[in-house]
Amino acid sequence: MTATAFERVPFNPNLLASLRRRLGDRLSTSAAVCAQHGKDESYHAPHAPDAVAFAQTTEEVAEIVALCAEYQTPVIAFGTGTSLEGHVAALKGGVCIDLSQMNKVLRVNAEDLDATVEAGVTRKQLNEYLRDTGLFFPIDPGADASIGGMAATRASGTNAVRYGTMRENVLALTIVLPDGKVIRTAQRARKSAAGYDLTRLFVGSEGTLGIITEVTVRLYGIPEAISAAVCAFPTIGDAVDTVILTIQNGVPVARIELLDEAQIDAINKYSKLDHKVAPTLFFEFHGTEAGVAEQTDIVKAIAAEHGGDDFRWATTPEARSKLWQARHDAYYAALALRPGSKGWPTDVCVPISRLAECIAATKDDLAQSTIPSALAGHVGDGNFHLIFMIDPEKPEEIAEASRLNDRMVARALAMEGTCTGEHGIGYGKMDFMVTEHGPALEVMRSIKQALDPKGIMNPGKIVQV
Amino acid sequence: MTATAFERVPFNPNLLASLRRRLGDRLSTSAAVCAQHGKDESYHAPHAPDAVAFAQTTEEVAEIVALCAEYQTPVIAFGTGTSLEGHVAALKGGVCIDLSQMNKVLRVNAEDLDATVEAGVTRKQLNEYLRDTGLFFPIDPGADASIGGMAATRASGTNAVRYGTMRENVLALTIVLPDGKVIRTAQRARKSAAGYDLTRLFVGSEGTLGIITEVTVRLYGIPEAISAAVCAFPTIGDAVDTVILTIQNGVPVARIELLDEAQIDAINKYSKLDHKVAPTLFFEFHGTEAGVAEQTDIVKAIAAEHGGDDFRWATTPEARSKLWQARHDAYYAALALRPGSKGWPTDVCVPISRLAECIAATKDDLAQSTIPSALAGHVGDGNFHLIFMIDPEKPEEIAEASRLNDRMVARALAMEGTCTGEHGIGYGKMDFMVTEHGPALEVMRSIKQALDPKGIMNPGKIVQV
Repeated sequence: MTATAFERVPFNPNLLASLRRRLGDRLSTSAAVCAQHGKDESYHAPHAPDAVAFAQTTEEVAEIVALCAEYQTPVIAFGTGTSLEGHVAALKGGVCIDLSQMNKVLRVNAEDLDATVEAGVTRKQLNEYLRDTGLFFPIDPGADASIGGMAATRASGTNAVRYGTMRENVLALTIVLPDGKVIRTAQRARKSAAGYDLTRLFVGSEGTLGIITEVTVRLYGIPEAISAAVCAFPTIGDAVDTVILTIQNGVPVARIELLDEAQIDAINKYSKLDHKVAPTLFFEFHGTEAGVAEQTDIVKAIAAEHGGDDFRWATTPEARSKLWQARHDAYYAALALRPGSKGWPTDVCVPISRLAECIAATKDDLAQSTIPSALAGHVGDGNFHLIFMIDPEKPEEIAEASRLNDRMVARALAMEGTCTGEHGIGYGKMDFMVTEHGPALEVMRSIKQALDPKGIMNPGKIVQV
Repeated sequence: MTATAFERVPFNPNLLASLRRRLGDRLSTSAAVCAQHGKDESYHAPHAPDAVAFAQTTEEVAEIVALCAEYQTPVIAFGTGTSLEGHVAALKGGVCIDLSQMNKVLRVNAEDLDATVEAGVTRKQLNEYLRDTGLFFPIDPGADASIGGMAATRASGTNAVRYGTMRENVLALTIVLPDGKVIRTAQRARKSAAGYDLTRLFVGSEGTLGIITEVTVRLYGIPEAISAAVCAFPTIGDAVDTVILTIQNGVPVARIELLDEAQIDAINKYSKLDHKVAPTLFFEFHGTEAGVAEQTDIVKAIAAEHGGDDFRWATTPEARSKLWQARHDAYYAALALRPGSKGWPTDVCVPISRLAECIAATKDDLAQSTIPSALAGHVGDGNFHLIFMIDPEKPEEIAEASRLNDRMVARALAMEGTCTGEHGIGYGKMDFMVTEHGPALEVMRSIKQALDPKGIMNPGKIVQV
């Protein structure tokens, strides 16, 4: 989707003056700073905001939003800028609120297995902070994203097959509403039946209904035993069938990741590894010693039936870190195969019974195209990505990637899947919302209009109003 | 809360005629049928609807709702009438839509571990249907409630500590909106980041935003090994401490239920059992043979440190069924202790670190009161219930139960908990919404007004508009 339909809202000098009075040199209008805040890690055209406000407290965010509301000026939240569908693009200009200075871990309740953090805390920062507690936070998109941004896009990653996504792992949020009021979406109890589920409404709302300033997340005890393994297969179909049987057998794998031969080649080169260049599964097993042994026995047997090689184990923490860092760097590794290219990451997710068919049909499409690509995916959830490495200066490449992506999304929807398992809508996937949601999109639009009647919150994302 | 603030909307004879033309003898205005549909299982004053429509399809529900919208007449959905906060009371009169004839299991996708059912299918009916598939649906409120009703109240039950609540286990819903339009809230993929989470918005909305007519739920493989055990403790504090340590140790118990001595006495009498009359935990362990053995070893050790008796095992399916049926009948068993009484079930839920303190303070309150009560709870979630057995004809008993409940809720909220872990708000708990949610209640009200501008959907529940 292009964003040419938008006109920039003229930026009121009185708003600028008020913001500057409030924030001093934590307000920037420098071209470089604005440009950096209007782009994410995708091929989508950047759109710089008029100003960037570096907020340090919820109260400050509330004051900024209230001022922007007064001047009917767009407000866009910014965490680490690692979104993939143009989420942070200031399509109509306005004020970007950079939350990276809100980076304090506010509270860890080890006994209750939860933590409350400011929105700018990144996932690695939280896990570093938790190091001596025996607890961890499992959600891991490829980037070291901010936890506020991860909540805003309903992120997941490699652990979701076992631990769920941000949907399941956010207990409560502090939100600055479009008029500057501040709410807390829930208490800290593990469950509640007290009214509408505002937490889940704001998780995945991409800054279009309010700005997340604090997040209470679930934590988990670090398992007694963890082991990771790599297994190469003769064909991608064999690897996918291994995944499907593993899930259908109820094996509680913590991670089960598919990489095609192109992606393996990319990470070998990028991360200086020597994996066999073949369709490959990366596994991780969590549990007690005996539990992990049981899980691996079952999965090894399934893999062997599908022609899988012997498991190559990563048993030390260092070896496991290296393995998963390489997996998390897959996107950057793929781009490095074609220097100067931009990534167009696809993100369909289908019911697992359709996964083999979906991947096979996708591979057939790719075989007839010249666009270079690599495949990696959280296949235990039925979610996989292609990364097209395109030259964004070449319209014919954008057109071809777009055609392939359209076909993937149409196929996923026909298989009762979704156009995005975890990246979100941003402005890149809005055209698919009509097909995916039909008349339900009108309900989303009603909610947007009710909560943000002035339409100032990240305009042009999720729904047009 | 009383519901005296409401005036009944005059029932338009033209609406009645239209409904009768459409439904024939599946529309009833008999006093007995209306009375039965205006009350639930609680002490709350019943309010009969003007008519009851027995719908058989989503299209029929849509037509009924569209007609009611035309005449600005309230619409209340009815499943099995087993709610506990007056959810089905027709406070302003109107049309009750009874969904019990929408009782078909539409589709089981065994490979994807999901099923789609009509809203009137009950949890036991679904599990009976699944009997030969090796799969089960875990959510189990005490009553054999309809799955539509369970989604509408965000129900949970004894298995939630391991399998989650309806929040985690509904994949998608078919909803009839307040204007009669029909939407599907999501596709069938396990995860999606495509827009606002309408599924979670409607789960727990108690028929105030639309009527749930179909539910797609997650299923689970029946574990290889299941064992259940009962363990009595010297004091309730010892039992609670055992629960807390079990959860904090990350033991994946499937069920961990607390019953105080009054509740044990009640189920002994009601279900003809011979449990020792003492504070007691009921456990269930799911997993592989080895996994279950590991879990029980850990929990037995924790229990022994807290003075727990030897575990009494229920190993055969029949013995387990008997055990859990007795637990599910706890509410009815408590009421039977005082023939003719009505139940006032409380439902607070707190972070587990506060559970022991919360229960101890509650017990102190009870010691100074004359209202008979029994305690049972899903303590692994921090959720517990008192059942007050009151004579609803005696205002002083209602006043005393109300006072005790108010104190419990205030205490739970002060401990960062909630006024309702799983029963919902109905009209019984609306007064607590202000304290629990503060300014967030205004967001709920905006959503209600946006989606149901005529205010016809189950008026007087969750939020006043």
